[in-house]
Amino acid sequence: MDEVIRLAHGSGGEASRKLVGDLVETYLKNDIIDCLDDSAVLSVREGRLAFTTDSYVVDPIFFPGGDIGSLAVHGTVNDLAMAGAKPLAITLGLILEEGLKVLDLERIMGSVSQAAAEAGVMVVGGDTKVVERGSADGIFINTSGIGMIPSGIEISSANARPGDKIILSGTVGDHGVAVISRREGLSFETDIKSDSAPLNGLVEAMLASSSAIHTMRDPTRGGLATSLNEIATKSGVGLLIDEAAVPLKPEVEHACEMLGLDPLYVANEGKLVAFVPSDDAEGVLAAMRANPYGRDAAVIGEVISESPGTVILNTAVGGQRILSPLSGELLPRIC
Amino acid sequence: MDEVIRLAHGSGGEASRKLVGDLVETYLKNDIIDCLDDSAVLSVREGRLAFTTDSYVVDPIFFPGGDIGSLAVHGTVNDLAMAGAKPLAITLGLILEEGLKVLDLERIMGSVSQAAAEAGVMVVGGDTKVVERGSADGIFINTSGIGMIPSGIEISSANARPGDKIILSGTVGDHGVAVISRREGLSFETDIKSDSAPLNGLVEAMLASSSAIHTMRDPTRGGLATSLNEIATKSGVGLLIDEAAVPLKPEVEHACEMLGLDPLYVANEGKLVAFVPSDDAEGVLAAMRANPYGRDAAVIGEVISESPGTVILNTAVGGQRILSPLSGELLPRIC
Repeated sequence: MDEVIRLAHGSGGEASRKLVGDLVETYLKNDIIDCLDDSAVLSVREGRLAFTTDSYVVDPIFFPGGDIGSLAVHGTVNDLAMAGAKPLAITLGLILEEGLKVLDLERIMGSVSQAAAEAGVMVVGGDTKVVERGSADGIFINTSGIGMIPSGIEISSANARPGDKIILSGTVGDHGVAVISRREGLSFETDIKSDSAPLNGLVEAMLASSSAIHTMRDPTRGGLATSLNEIATKSGVGLLIDEAAVPLKPEVEHACEMLGLDPLYVANEGKLVAFVPSDDAEGVLAAMRANPYGRDAAVIGEVISESPGTVILNTAVGGQRILSPLSGELLPRIC
Repeated sequence: MDEVIRLAHGSGGEASRKLVGDLVETYLKNDIIDCLDDSAVLSVREGRLAFTTDSYVVDPIFFPGGDIGSLAVHGTVNDLAMAGAKPLAITLGLILEEGLKVLDLERIMGSVSQAAAEAGVMVVGGDTKVVERGSADGIFINTSGIGMIPSGIEISSANARPGDKIILSGTVGDHGVAVISRREGLSFETDIKSDSAPLNGLVEAMLASSSAIHTMRDPTRGGLATSLNEIATKSGVGLLIDEAAVPLKPEVEHACEMLGLDPLYVANEGKLVAFVPSDDAEGVLAAMRANPYGRDAAVIGEVISESPGTVILNTAVGGQRILSPLSGELLPRIC
């Protein structure tokens, strides 16, 4: 292989075919992917198909706990899982900057491969474009995904209902702090790792415990505060959140204090928040805690019929305030 | 709206929500898209689903006959159509450079909307990321798409068979020459326009004439020569092409001569090449000519059992030579 990416690798000709052929052969081989056909073909059963897309521009491309490759798989798998869907397949669209090291690209493809295997999802197709030096920043990845929603599952950000318990699957802020600390060259007393992880297994366990879960969301860009606000607005309900109940690693809390960040607004890539009818909450919580990605799950609040569209925070110091969505930009290129 | 894109438009917070909300409301409104849910949900029937992705990095973003928005819709619709699939839905992933004019983004979204309406496909979801000035080049777009393949249709680049007639839907090289002339500030005696167009209607008409079509391909990057080589290799057959039969606009021929380009290697974005059993070729050709995007369709050659993996060109001047796939880079960022 060449040492760096050249424009010819995006030509659609021989150099493209060799690069993509080698990468697919080494990292993505399965029964469906075929780098020479324009579409992948999959058999589906009648039902509801979830379809999602996300582009990843994280800077730096390698960070503690992951890289742009694993993140791109986890993010899209999680978006499918948040609809209650069982992920079937994803596509991989690469935009490469001329001069990117082929070894870095290989390392990223290795992460894609490993993340897809853990999530049990196939990469069935892709596309590679190359732009001149200075017209992109190393590598951008788009992943799109499809999955089937089992019958009887009705999950939507508009479905939260008064009385629902709000369960968070674990600690907040790990991903954002890990990325920003690596980007800024900061080092904290302990090594903070991104929580980037596939949540479809966790969701499957939760749905096995209760098919009545109303809403699920992975609080990525904008953090938990922004996701909660979107759900409050869409469902037309109020949310009462107990700040002290929100799991937070001491080292992340410490880093956020140093950086002047509120961890409730910092991105997560391996967490979800679920809105569960009160009667089912205990069972769902137990199912979550039995899963490696839900070990620290906790009930952090409940849905109320008052103050529709508003998130009210009972603060750790005993006060109460409105938790607004993120305004302005907190951390650019966090995912 | 703001005048230019700022980093906050990619924050996932209020500024993102306002930008995306306004764009969706104005250009993409339909029953399925919801900018607050992570996945779109569609009902599908049992069958074969085609799934494809492509990123678009064309430079310049506006060119004669189209722009990056219409191109992104056409390209993905066409990739689905080349599998014989009826396009159902596409997603739109935007990577924006800080400083992009919002008016340019709106013009592009208008093109997306118009192209999707003409192709009869819904944009059901999307994603918007913003990177700092200098970390991208204005706008990159990823479109992914899904579609259903009617039963009885078996189209693949591995299915070309000796005796098949090779039909090209129209003139070659229009897109590549239109983009490169605008990029380089060249002007030719006549205005050469990109052929960027949705081909799903044409494909539907072709399949109504014959469900036995073996192979279809849209010759984009790498041009007709590269697509033919890929099919010859995948199907393990030889192809005999009559150069004089390949439709070519005189002004494109002239421009290619000036630019030192071989039109057989120049990208097309609204053309397809089909491999059709001899008995059905006349009917398919007639069906193509009755469609606005197949008006200039012509039989350009046939499949032979000799010389598997090779494309042989009977040249316009009466000679014969091997037509190889594109090596190196001809025209960077043509799509």
